[in-house]
Amino acid sequence: MSKEVKSDIEIAQMANMIPIKDIVKELKISEEEWEPYGHYKAKLSLTIMDRLKNEPDGKVILVTAINPTPAGEGKSTVTVGLGQALNKIGKKTMIALREPSLGPTMGIKGGAAGGGYSQVVPMEDINLHFTGDIHAITTAHNAIAAILDNHIHRGNELNIDVRRIVWKRVLDMNDRALRNIIIGLGGPLQGVPRENGFDITVASEIMAILCLAKNLNDLKKRVAKVVVAYTPEEKPVTVKDLKAEGAVTLLLKEALKPNIVQTLENTPALIHGGPFANIAHGCNSVIATKLAAKLADFVVTEAGFGADLGAEKFLNIKTRAGEINPDLVVIVATVRALKMHGGVSKDQLKEENIQALKAGLANLEKHVETIREFGLPHVVAINKFVHDKEKEIETLRTWCEEQGVNVELADVWANGGEGGRDLAIRVTKELSKANNNFKHLYDVTMSIKEKIKAIATKVYGAEEIELSPLAEKQIAIFEKNGWSDLPICMAKSQYSLSDDPTKLGRPTGFILHVRELKPSIGAGFIVALTGNVMTMPGLPKEPAAMKMDVDEDGKAVGLF
Amino acid sequence: MSKEVKSDIEIAQMANMIPIKDIVKELKISEEEWEPYGHYKAKLSLTIMDRLKNEPDGKVILVTAINPTPAGEGKSTVTVGLGQALNKIGKKTMIALREPSLGPTMGIKGGAAGGGYSQVVPMEDINLHFTGDIHAITTAHNAIAAILDNHIHRGNELNIDVRRIVWKRVLDMNDRALRNIIIGLGGPLQGVPRENGFDITVASEIMAILCLAKNLNDLKKRVAKVVVAYTPEEKPVTVKDLKAEGAVTLLLKEALKPNIVQTLENTPALIHGGPFANIAHGCNSVIATKLAAKLADFVVTEAGFGADLGAEKFLNIKTRAGEINPDLVVIVATVRALKMHGGVSKDQLKEENIQALKAGLANLEKHVETIREFGLPHVVAINKFVHDKEKEIETLRTWCEEQGVNVELADVWANGGEGGRDLAIRVTKELSKANNNFKHLYDVTMSIKEKIKAIATKVYGAEEIELSPLAEKQIAIFEKNGWSDLPICMAKSQYSLSDDPTKLGRPTGFILHVRELKPSIGAGFIVALTGNVMTMPGLPKEPAAMKMDVDEDGKAVGLF
Repeated sequence: MSKEVKSDIEIAQMANMIPIKDIVKELKISEEEWEPYGHYKAKLSLTIMDRLKNEPDGKVILVTAINPTPAGEGKSTVTVGLGQALNKIGKKTMIALREPSLGPTMGIKGGAAGGGYSQVVPMEDINLHFTGDIHAITTAHNAIAAILDNHIHRGNELNIDVRRIVWKRVLDMNDRALRNIIIGLGGPLQGVPRENGFDITVASEIMAILCLAKNLNDLKKRVAKVVVAYTPEEKPVTVKDLKAEGAVTLLLKEALKPNIVQTLENTPALIHGGPFANIAHGCNSVIATKLAAKLADFVVTEAGFGADLGAEKFLNIKTRAGEINPDLVVIVATVRALKMHGGVSKDQLKEENIQALKAGLANLEKHVETIREFGLPHVVAINKFVHDKEKEIETLRTWCEEQGVNVELADVWANGGEGGRDLAIRVTKELSKANNNFKHLYDVTMSIKEKIKAIATKVYGAEEIELSPLAEKQIAIFEKNGWSDLPICMAKSQYSLSDDPTKLGRPTGFILHVRELKPSIGAGFIVALTGNVMTMPGLPKEPAAMKMDVDEDGKAVGLF
Repeated sequence: MSKEVKSDIEIAQMANMIPIKDIVKELKISEEEWEPYGHYKAKLSLTIMDRLKNEPDGKVILVTAINPTPAGEGKSTVTVGLGQALNKIGKKTMIALREPSLGPTMGIKGGAAGGGYSQVVPMEDINLHFTGDIHAITTAHNAIAAILDNHIHRGNELNIDVRRIVWKRVLDMNDRALRNIIIGLGGPLQGVPRENGFDITVASEIMAILCLAKNLNDLKKRVAKVVVAYTPEEKPVTVKDLKAEGAVTLLLKEALKPNIVQTLENTPALIHGGPFANIAHGCNSVIATKLAAKLADFVVTEAGFGADLGAEKFLNIKTRAGEINPDLVVIVATVRALKMHGGVSKDQLKEENIQALKAGLANLEKHVETIREFGLPHVVAINKFVHDKEKEIETLRTWCEEQGVNVELADVWANGGEGGRDLAIRVTKELSKANNNFKHLYDVTMSIKEKIKAIATKVYGAEEIELSPLAEKQIAIFEKNGWSDLPICMAKSQYSLSDDPTKLGRPTGFILHVRELKPSIGAGFIVALTGNVMTMPGLPKEPAAMKMDVDEDGKAVGLF
């Protein structure tokens, strides 16, 4: 198939979109159950869930990947392509994706809504302000911060220790200069001086809460529980203590409604929420995934980074919070990334290298084992790139077949749904078998240390875990505070199965070091930090923003 | 007329709204020219202006007021009420208002979209995130800041003096702890340490630009000219030097489209932009006002604070930028506020006090003289409050009649459009006379000092102006930079005609002190600061946010 190579935005701007009102009508959603945001985006009312609560759930297909590399795995592209392909073979399918953050868009990435002929559209809107959900989260988060500092300024009745404030501020921006700041300077009328900092909005606990809440009431309850600071005696101070949970819920009431758009082939897609996949759980909202399962027979959704982070959290955290029953996992692998895991550098990826590919397969092998550990049916999807060699693809395919692993080529970037036809057929075939033995990898009633160890050994392949004295001390405090029965959210490098980002492939015999713990009580998990996790990215030397513009007709330019 | 007294939000939530698609259809706007945001809000395309460019303009009626007091003048209420009343007497009318900022909503005010039976709706949405315009401005503003600090971090090719950076960051929040901060702490990977601070978003020059731009191209040109910093040699560094104007324009392309909603009586209302009325010009967008004038025969619009600030800037700055021809000015006065100008304290306002009222009339007198100076027809509207005494209203009315000033009672808070019928009739009667001799109060080619003096003496009634040595020095620099031919934007206390907020009524013989100048080259004016102007408000002891919540049905509670 010969096509002129077009940029993602060029392809997206040529899309033959159906008015969203027709997409919504096709889903049998009534006039009162949705609200348009322009002619091609809409918000769906939470009352649809109530209406459909006795309907059977569609099959939930999770798309995950091997450990990401700078080569790019195209997980969102495969998610969109598979959704399109399932519709093509006559299966009523919806897609559920995360909303991209503006920070990386203005920084390095330029845009993120799938790629090639497997994109969600309108791509410009999705990558810019979309329906304003992330801005609402920014506002809600910072309202808590302003109320907190105002409380201290006005006499500090709650006896908050200014050295023990854990609630930062947020912006949906890559802005390194805001990582470490001092606020409240200027004298007695300008607040109380203290250390503070900004995270990027998608790292906010409010984002994680929005994505795990079942409804508006659950959202409010979770927000109330958020720990913002401690007293000098280390007693936690919460949003409820600040009496701010009502205002925060009010600020989030529209953002909690899932957004519906479509793919280039008019497959309906819910795009809702996008928490970090390290200090948070990295999945789109529970509400969107559950709603998609009510509205369609198949839901294709994704989780951030590789299966060690995103899928593990989807399966151990999100399925618990949302009472979601996953049906199948698609593991995306690319020849390019496997060669990098096998030791090839980025500039050598165009050369055929069977040996490196074979060495890199160990990474895929571990992720397949992990999904087996969860008891879930799975299919490996080889996401085809232009420079992949036939022999390399065959090597990968043969390896999978030898291991008894389902595998299909996904040529969805170049050919959209048609390029994912084989994958879709294989997925439906696997789904028709009664071989789903899904189980969580740990019980929440286990100790914090045991839960971390379960993830480290079963998912990462670690030999052992080692906790810093600080982490040990924190566990004791958390137990005293009644926070032990929560799932664990691991913050670890996405590039390696271990906590050392340089160890590619399948490292073994390593110890996972837990540096610090962080209670996300509103979200409902304990974050375990290994190494440093960047919660406020910086801009590169030449930010993508510099190439962005608007043309004569008001159309976006430079968004990839 | 006996009615149970309801809160603004209770009245607003009982509104009989017409779907926005029907309002838009009534205005003969085609399907491609508008986009819904929910069923009761929409954005209008800028292409409508092109289609209607040869149509005659409707009459532009500016609503202004005496100097505001804590008693409240209800300028927005009269604006909405007059618009409703004009429609009631058969005149095709639209309203053009500013969008409220979330900061004051969460802080003291609770909400701002008119009051009583003269409100714009959906009130909740207008007061919360609305269509996201202010969030887009926050993002665009902070993108410039992030790119600026990244530029310095990456080698500072433009030789920016970190002590001479004038571009702050913004949030749409009342957050005093962010007024004075130090950023970039933490070592060489975390940026370059420097002093910084946050303003509230509505104080951003980007907000002023959005409100003065004629179209997207004009917006980009203005953004490019914004001065963000200086070199050690005091050479200005602009957004164009940072190559950020394209990205900023892209981030603002939807925000530049005016928003349409309706009043409680279904009069169409454009709500678009809301810059400060001290360091900026305090009016809704040029685009909204001009578009309303093309779509209707009468436009009722307002400007911030009293006539000395808002109306002066509307008439000297906005009319120039937008080539708008104003037709009539309504000056809102209340018995309560006039009594305060006459020396009565806030807790004594319920008592009849004819003497204080008569003393306070001097304030109204000065504003009437100012509007006469501009050569514009005018009507005084007495905005009726519950506790006003019949004799007080008659005193005010009689005084106006003795001065030859048109005056009408506006009972629009309690009775909506019906309560503004007399005012509407009087306004149309005045408009039918050929007595519009509008002229600007100064020529932009006059020196900066002469322009400031013209405003101070003609509008404020000052005897003389006095510039600080800093201001004198700045004038010399501005002249060198070629910035002298711009209109002046005065930043002065809104409570007094003078620069001393305690001098109520009509102070005379005073000197206006200009402390500092600030170039807003993108907006296209020079700000002259008298006294301190707060550009980041703080929260009160008990923020309005603490009373806010969402009820069982997902409806807002506590927004007034």
